Amino acid sequence: MSETETSAGWLTREELRDARERLPIVYVSVVPVRVDERGVVTTIGLLLRASSEGTIDRELVSGRVLYHERIRDALIRHVEKDLGPLSMPRIPLSPQPFTVAEYFPTPGVTPFHDPRQHAVALAYVVPVNGDCQPRQDALDLVWLTPAEASSDAVLQDMHGGQGTLLRQALAHVGCLS
Amino acid sequence: MSETETSAGWLTREELRDARERLPIVYVSVVPVRVDERGVVTTIGLLLRASSEGTIDRELVSGRVLYHERIRDALIRHVEKDLGPLSMPRIPLSPQPFTVAEYFPTPGVTPFHDPRQHAVALAYVVPVNGDCQPRQDALDLVWLTPAEASSDAVLQDMHGGQGTLLRQALAHVGCLS
Amino acid sequence: MSETETSAGWLTREELRDARERLPIVYVSVVPVRVDERGVVTTIGLLLRASSEGTIDRELVSGRVLYHERIRDALIRHVEKDLGPLSMPRIPLSPQPFTVAEYFPTPGVTPFHDPRQHAVALAYVVPVNGDCQPRQDALDLVWLTPAEASSDAVLQDMHGGQGTLLRQALAHVGCLS
Amino acid sequence: MSETETSAGWLTREELRDARERLPIVYVSVVPVRVDERGVVTTIGLLLRASSEGTIDRELVSGRVLYHERIRDALIRHVEKDLGPLSMPRIPLSPQPFTVAEYFPTPGVTPFHDPRQHAVALAYVVPVNGDCQPRQDALDLVWLTPAEASSDAVLQDMHGGQGTLLRQALAHVGCLS
Repeated sequence: MSETETSAGWLTREELRDARERLPIVYVSVVPVRVDERGVVTTIGLLLRASSEGTIDRELVSGRVLYHERIRDALIRHVEKDLGPLSMPRIPLSPQPFTVAEYFPTPGVTPFHDPRQHAVALAYVVPVNGDCQPRQDALDLVWLTPAEASSDAVLQDMHGGQGTLLRQALAHVGCLS
Repeated sequence: MSETETSAGWLTREELRDARERLPIVYVSVVPVRVDERGVVTTIGLLLRASSEGTIDRELVSGRVLYHERIRDALIRHVEKDLGPLSMPRIPLSPQPFTVAEYFPTPGVTPFHDPRQHAVALAYVVPVNGDCQPRQDALDLVWLTPAEASSDAVLQDMHGGQGTLLRQALAHVGCLS
Repeated sequence: MSETETSAGWLTREELRDARERLPIVYVSVVPVRVDERGVVTTIGLLLRASSEGTIDRELVSGRVLYHERIRDALIRHVEKDLGPLSMPRIPLSPQPFTVAEYFPTPGVTPFHDPRQHAVALAYVVPVNGDCQPRQDALDLVWLTPAEASSDAVLQDMHGGQGTLLRQALAHVGCLS
Repeated sequence: MSETETSAGWLTREELRDARERLPIVYVSVVPVRVDERGVVTTIGLLLRASSEGTIDRELVSGRVLYHERIRDALIRHVEKDLGPLSMPRIPLSPQPFTVAEYFPTPGVTPFHDPRQHAVALAYVVPVNGDCQPRQDALDLVWLTPAEASSDAVLQDMHGGQGTLLRQALAHVGCLS
């Protein structure tokens, strides 16, 4: 999970680093999708980013929930941050996530791993209707069919368990082949 | 639950009556809502119908799933039948209903009662974006806030457990006060 | 899905066959599991059956909901029918299934296919605490770890989309690798 | 929500107070229930506590998720802390909560209010099989039927939105009348 919103938060970079060594941090994870008029997921949007090791990684949209920020506002903020201000996300009506991903700093405790922190990520599938443009540090935004998105070739480019989370999302919407 | 689509089905009226005495019938129940851009439910649409006893009842959208019909197609069909062809329902991505209401011909087995049949109703909250007009035999379509919709005055006009189903829907979307 | 409870129902074999050509039939599908004291799924139980083609198939527990039968009673009845009267299923508290599998007589409409009928199957993960013995026409009951159960070798022995349903169940309980 | 586990955490009381002014804190909320063999909720357990204002409040089980603690371990810890070491909770198989309650330090933002902090509480219904004894600072543990638990008399003794959360839980398990 990328972390770029530090400056928009209520903590200095040092304070956030300190808190991350002491407390689980609340995150949202978003699987952005295009749907047809019958509610069927047609494509899933994955961000491409250059990793510090020189590889190209595929990523979901995700980020921290800020102090005094509602989950639905965090969802809008992170989708617009990563997919652009015209992406027009349809925020879920219910606060119930399709799953909760527990990212641990120690690998192997759960399928999810984040070396920087213990993050508790509420995960949602979010349709986007509008014009999506990758922003921030992403190289590109690629739309894949459910079959492509759950292929081994794609999943091996996803790290920290995000491939598992993507497959859970596809299972939830009935598109895991 | 009103039943008006018999002629669109694959059974004669007599055959359907016969099946209803032998088998549970698959239904969908829809709580139609208006939402704001943050996904918050602002109003709930209830149909007004004149009952055979001369009272005015409030009802959700519901109806049978036909042979060889997908649940998402049944949702579209029943919303458009009751709210009009321009209602533009946003069909849920996941087939998982927020609850299953078991309507029994015998009162008291569950909170749900339908004297005509044993119906197993998959229940969904469905946002409608478009222009809604009550069709068929409904007198009117009224939009109520969540607080109004869960008031005793409204619930006492709902029958067969539909008031309970409405409150379950409001609880699911975080709007039950 | 096997269908062996016909004689226990309210229809003759001919009447049931007739209804199946006209109406969607309500089913329950059960993924039986063993869990540890922390609620983690440790193993999944699959039935082995000899198919009419001479192959050995792996199957979930499933069957019809009868007229005037509650879903939770159908779950108990089918688990005890397939896993024995001492299997001690823990029936879910909520009627909300983790998914709904739409079995169509025509292949390819959904991932689920049943040549005999259009079945709408409410799917639940059900822990069993007791002594499980395969009954009826099953050859054996085999307990597999989540990793084994989601392997290609196992999934290719499951038919009609049951392998997809099993993977959806594993995703729901956070055990899909 | 009571907060008594500070000493078991990784922060001093001052550090926790400081973090609470900066970050949302991850909580679990538990509705403890007794169920029958068919999975039907028969009673709900509520803790009685003397408030600082001299009134008797009714409370759900809840508390913080610690750094490097899994949600299911936090559920066990808080149930055993409040209901005793012999309460034998059945931890849910899926990490998916039935809802997420957002407790804000400012009243009115959501139905949930906690003057001390912004808490994001993952809420679960947890059956307890064993012998339950109120521990810690609770005066008593009272078991109520679903109808009693959702009565106005009980709900007015619950604070900070816990009555709303209880009703959401009852709706989820199909017991909200």
